[in-house]
Amino acid sequence: MIAGIIGATGYAGAELVRLLSGHPKIDSLCLSSVSFEGENIEEVYPNFLGRISCKLQKAEDVIAASDVVFSALPHGVGEPFAVACMERKIHYIDLSADFRFDDDEPVYSAWYGKQYKYPQLHKNSIYGLVELNRQKIKSLAEKGAVVIGNPGCYPTGGSLGAFPALAKGLNRAGAPVIVDAVTGVTGGGREPSRSFHYAECADSVSPYKVASHRHSPEIARNLAAMSAVGGNPAPQLIFTPRLAPVNRGILSVIYIPLKEQWCVNVNNVVMPLSSEIEAKTAEIRELYRAFYKDEPFVRILPAGLTAATNRVRQSNYCDISVHIDLNGSTLIVTTAIDNMVKGAAGQAVQNMNVLFGFEEKSGLDAIPALF
Amino acid sequence: MIAGIIGATGYAGAELVRLLSGHPKIDSLCLSSVSFEGENIEEVYPNFLGRISCKLQKAEDVIAASDVVFSALPHGVGEPFAVACMERKIHYIDLSADFRFDDDEPVYSAWYGKQYKYPQLHKNSIYGLVELNRQKIKSLAEKGAVVIGNPGCYPTGGSLGAFPALAKGLNRAGAPVIVDAVTGVTGGGREPSRSFHYAECADSVSPYKVASHRHSPEIARNLAAMSAVGGNPAPQLIFTPRLAPVNRGILSVIYIPLKEQWCVNVNNVVMPLSSEIEAKTAEIRELYRAFYKDEPFVRILPAGLTAATNRVRQSNYCDISVHIDLNGSTLIVTTAIDNMVKGAAGQAVQNMNVLFGFEEKSGLDAIPALF
Amino acid sequence: MIAGIIGATGYAGAELVRLLSGHPKIDSLCLSSVSFEGENIEEVYPNFLGRISCKLQKAEDVIAASDVVFSALPHGVGEPFAVACMERKIHYIDLSADFRFDDDEPVYSAWYGKQYKYPQLHKNSIYGLVELNRQKIKSLAEKGAVVIGNPGCYPTGGSLGAFPALAKGLNRAGAPVIVDAVTGVTGGGREPSRSFHYAECADSVSPYKVASHRHSPEIARNLAAMSAVGGNPAPQLIFTPRLAPVNRGILSVIYIPLKEQWCVNVNNVVMPLSSEIEAKTAEIRELYRAFYKDEPFVRILPAGLTAATNRVRQSNYCDISVHIDLNGSTLIVTTAIDNMVKGAAGQAVQNMNVLFGFEEKSGLDAIPALF
Amino acid sequence: MIAGIIGATGYAGAELVRLLSGHPKIDSLCLSSVSFEGENIEEVYPNFLGRISCKLQKAEDVIAASDVVFSALPHGVGEPFAVACMERKIHYIDLSADFRFDDDEPVYSAWYGKQYKYPQLHKNSIYGLVELNRQKIKSLAEKGAVVIGNPGCYPTGGSLGAFPALAKGLNRAGAPVIVDAVTGVTGGGREPSRSFHYAECADSVSPYKVASHRHSPEIARNLAAMSAVGGNPAPQLIFTPRLAPVNRGILSVIYIPLKEQWCVNVNNVVMPLSSEIEAKTAEIRELYRAFYKDEPFVRILPAGLTAATNRVRQSNYCDISVHIDLNGSTLIVTTAIDNMVKGAAGQAVQNMNVLFGFEEKSGLDAIPALF
Repeated sequence: MIAGIIGATGYAGAELVRLLSGHPKIDSLCLSSVSFEGENIEEVYPNFLGRISCKLQKAEDVIAASDVVFSALPHGVGEPFAVACMERKIHYIDLSADFRFDDDEPVYSAWYGKQYKYPQLHKNSIYGLVELNRQKIKSLAEKGAVVIGNPGCYPTGGSLGAFPALAKGLNRAGAPVIVDAVTGVTGGGREPSRSFHYAECADSVSPYKVASHRHSPEIARNLAAMSAVGGNPAPQLIFTPRLAPVNRGILSVIYIPLKEQWCVNVNNVVMPLSSEIEAKTAEIRELYRAFYKDEPFVRILPAGLTAATNRVRQSNYCDISVHIDLNGSTLIVTTAIDNMVKGAAGQAVQNMNVLFGFEEKSGLDAIPALF
Repeated sequence: MIAGIIGATGYAGAELVRLLSGHPKIDSLCLSSVSFEGENIEEVYPNFLGRISCKLQKAEDVIAASDVVFSALPHGVGEPFAVACMERKIHYIDLSADFRFDDDEPVYSAWYGKQYKYPQLHKNSIYGLVELNRQKIKSLAEKGAVVIGNPGCYPTGGSLGAFPALAKGLNRAGAPVIVDAVTGVTGGGREPSRSFHYAECADSVSPYKVASHRHSPEIARNLAAMSAVGGNPAPQLIFTPRLAPVNRGILSVIYIPLKEQWCVNVNNVVMPLSSEIEAKTAEIRELYRAFYKDEPFVRILPAGLTAATNRVRQSNYCDISVHIDLNGSTLIVTTAIDNMVKGAAGQAVQNMNVLFGFEEKSGLDAIPALF
Repeated sequence: MIAGIIGATGYAGAELVRLLSGHPKIDSLCLSSVSFEGENIEEVYPNFLGRISCKLQKAEDVIAASDVVFSALPHGVGEPFAVACMERKIHYIDLSADFRFDDDEPVYSAWYGKQYKYPQLHKNSIYGLVELNRQKIKSLAEKGAVVIGNPGCYPTGGSLGAFPALAKGLNRAGAPVIVDAVTGVTGGGREPSRSFHYAECADSVSPYKVASHRHSPEIARNLAAMSAVGGNPAPQLIFTPRLAPVNRGILSVIYIPLKEQWCVNVNNVVMPLSSEIEAKTAEIRELYRAFYKDEPFVRILPAGLTAATNRVRQSNYCDISVHIDLNGSTLIVTTAIDNMVKGAAGQAVQNMNVLFGFEEKSGLDAIPALF
Repeated sequence: MIAGIIGATGYAGAELVRLLSGHPKIDSLCLSSVSFEGENIEEVYPNFLGRISCKLQKAEDVIAASDVVFSALPHGVGEPFAVACMERKIHYIDLSADFRFDDDEPVYSAWYGKQYKYPQLHKNSIYGLVELNRQKIKSLAEKGAVVIGNPGCYPTGGSLGAFPALAKGLNRAGAPVIVDAVTGVTGGGREPSRSFHYAECADSVSPYKVASHRHSPEIARNLAAMSAVGGNPAPQLIFTPRLAPVNRGILSVIYIPLKEQWCVNVNNVVMPLSSEIEAKTAEIRELYRAFYKDEPFVRILPAGLTAATNRVRQSNYCDISVHIDLNGSTLIVTTAIDNMVKGAAGQAVQNMNVLFGFEEKSGLDAIPALF
């Protein structure tokens, strides 16, 4: 089976190259790049030297030659490629935001400044957060070629951490959910810019796009969907991204006000964590474990551990730890993903595995690198 | 004037050495260290080679020879030194938590596992967050020798970001305030440990002591004090610290639910930031500016900038930026400090300046290092 | 087949766990640890959570249960384990220096302060730099159980970069060879210490043990062996290690004075690189390529590229680039390895593969991680 | 006195702004920038907010208004500014390479691809390595306005480490001197590029421009000058730069073959450092100390310490440590500077101090930052 990658020389594209080259069902790759057309991928990424030799072609040629196509291009250019794939009746997995809002074009337009040119196309496409939509993806794949909108990196870590609590209706209706996430720099892509210039971001932490990041509507939409399962209205979302000097990883802390305050701190005296709260935390941890018991890539951490990005590095895992505030009012969930794997290329491969009925862990069985 | 430093070879102690050696009112230093007694400070920190030559003595000898004494020791050992200083009628500034809870011994005991042995001592001591207690510190100093409990690093950044909103009663009574802060590693001190071993914390972000960090009661107490000014009950505090691979700095994001929701988002459709919210943000920014207009070390950032730790590096500044959530429900304040300066040694020098009536910026006029 | 690892919780041991758990010929692992006996490896390294579950036992029990044994302990304690393995007739691969000087005990004693207690043992053991001793390792393995002294990290990168030039007699007899290598911090191991405390080594570069590092005699011995092939006396070695703030990797620059000065710069006017020198460089690059043409883990970089540690990250490759000084007097070779893989655990697995006649790349086929 | 800075918004320019704003003899600054003309420097560098407010003007206006002018522009554009300053009879200090080769235009042309348009200008200008040319700079300044070619960063650290040995004729005539230097990223400037994109250079070490860096002829020229003092011909130079993930600093290791081999290692057995060599090292250390005894910014480290970039951070120091190879054949000198201070802006201020007869440490008395 031949996998095609459009935009193979960006960071997400190159990570796809690396993952797919080790996938047991993929026989060969077919790659495109506008910037490096005609060159070999191992010239652009000497990491691949002697391992992955593949000339960079035009996108059309990649589509014509492939059995499944991934696109790792910027937002706003994916539709024609999706159309071409549908015509060829092959699955198309797009890592941009172009197919993440298929049921809500106004939100897409408002945040990304583009409009759908092929509205029909968006009727048969689906948001590829497998833990949310696995069955729908499978059903669609049974009927024919599918367009997948691969989730954003922040929405992946933010949504997975909130899902069980919302699905079980633990949250207080009407209270906002806060997702505060620290990301590594590869999320900014390969194009040099001041924000990601080494001397500007080394040895510094800074928030950016506070209350204005484009992943906000995507996270909000996911939370709304899961709240509906729990019988609650969509919670308001507050999302703050920060940049830290690490290459990979997103560490999200998610604050979910609890419907039931487990331990009423009458006098508001701030005392250390009570055993009552610890017991309730253990209960919710079990609830999370049960919710994700069949998920191959979600790990609920035992008591005493909090999620850390260096424990999921280079892997497709989402690690989750569960805590309750001192006063018992708020569930605090921490999640860690590798933004380039579970937050981008790995999740895209996971979608491919679901679409084709492969073992879901195929090509994604890397144990997190130790350092 | 001679400044004494007890515990001069820890990170906060050494930073005090560096700052005080450049202070125009300090003629010489007198230093103690248990671990390195008898050695010279320039052997312990070769950075000081040829610049600061000072033999490390016993604490008692430092107290006997100094006109003001700083202690940069761990928690639980400061009382006898404070007693000795009071007997000599010289000011004593303690960087540990030992004098931060002088009006609330039970909280200190519960969180630090120690009890006050000299309760009388704590009657005349004061919490040294200058922006909160400047007048009280000055008044006490007029009466005689003072014991200062120098604030913790997280409480400094967390409290300063919330104060104006609470003092003006902008917050919704009963709703919790969240402080989510990312810190650099120097906060962990000089003693080697697994958590701060390079290979363990490089290239990683992780929360720690979620809902159980000892700075929680200190922040809560500060917020309560300022809420009282605004006519509100003490807000519940939720505090989450995270560690990032930077040497210095604390970047806090503070979520303050607003009493008045500035922009009701009826349908909960997540749309980009409205101009109405931007206008309200500008109003609150001005309110912050007015609140801090006489503070030499607080900088309210203009619209378009968010606080970043690399812009206050090596300085005593606290940078603050003000934002409102997309839905208008929550004030989001970001603050950046250098944890070793404004969060420790610099703030201690600031306290000395206030105690002695020196120009408050004396010895603290470093422009933030560029990289 | 069961692989045993003694000292599985240090950095090299844990990396062995990770690599061997993905090795197609290894069915299960058997691990020992003194510090964590009784615990599970996934508790010590939560990266392994849900992937590698293995209780930490005593070393003797590991040896008794395994078909091959690796030891990742400090220097000076390996002999009894080697004896036990020889008695059980199973191969023993030691990652310490204990079996690297089997033909030269005085050098081992002088540098490591220990003496061989089982001299007989060292007669049948061999230095496991596969690129140097592959045939000898194979021959020994045909006769029975073998003790392998797995090479040090610096000697691996330093020797591989010099071998072709020395084997071909390009070097000037009598002139010293300089190896100047920058290493990442994992070489310092897992035990916390001041040198590897984050705040002490972040944002800094420093040489250490100049002219006194214990890897000096190992490198010198390797260079001598290959010089003999080239018909030259042993070159004098000058070795300087430096520490840089990276987790993994060793970047060596090797200066080899050339027998024949390719381009005599008569007036010593320093002018840009001449085409004559570029041509000679290309010749020597081809000579390097030919020398290593059958080596699965050595990559000779094309003109225009220099070795970089981030291009071999997480892999068993040694990347080599070849240059000539402006004046044509000196060959400058740069090599990059991942110190934890080719410089330690990966090389140990490579030795196992050779000993058992497995495909040499088995379990070592990771493509270098992109970031 | 008013100091003008042309090109104030690059890294070296901004560092000059920071240093000069704290200089006791400078009353105000006058700044130019092509990219940010019309903006205020505190908008470009928010570090300066509330501290340095200065509108960015045209270069001509800066020259017209200043009493001394610094230029921190790229190579090849400085001559007209120098001419303008000479006409106004004010000193001009250029941080580019444009005036570093005033006595050797062919070398400048060959390496920088430009030619001098005002040859006359270069007759009265001087290379501003103060430790080499202090008296000449003073003499020129007595006669009128001077053009200073401020040294490159690598040549500063490389030359200072070799000078005493060459001046005393310790080196073996005819043998090459090797300078192998690891630099931080700020040397690459503020303009974003792939090489300095965070994800590309974090967690990696790599050499670059091996045998082809433009600082080679500058270092070679300096070594030749000092060799002449020692009565030796110019030594051949081999220069290798490497990039490491640190913001500031250059760590150079300099290999100088010794005329006299202190300890003949007859059998080339590699044994630990002998006491004989240690004694000789101490002798040479004293020789270095004597050579630099009046230099305010050179620190010869005591035995047991090697130079480290984090011990000179943010300061104008050059730390030097002296070692001898195990075999006694080669002097190994390590030097550490902050590339933005002693390697650029600080050295420029030092030149200004010499030109005006100010205390040489004025404005440069920062104690190295601890972390």
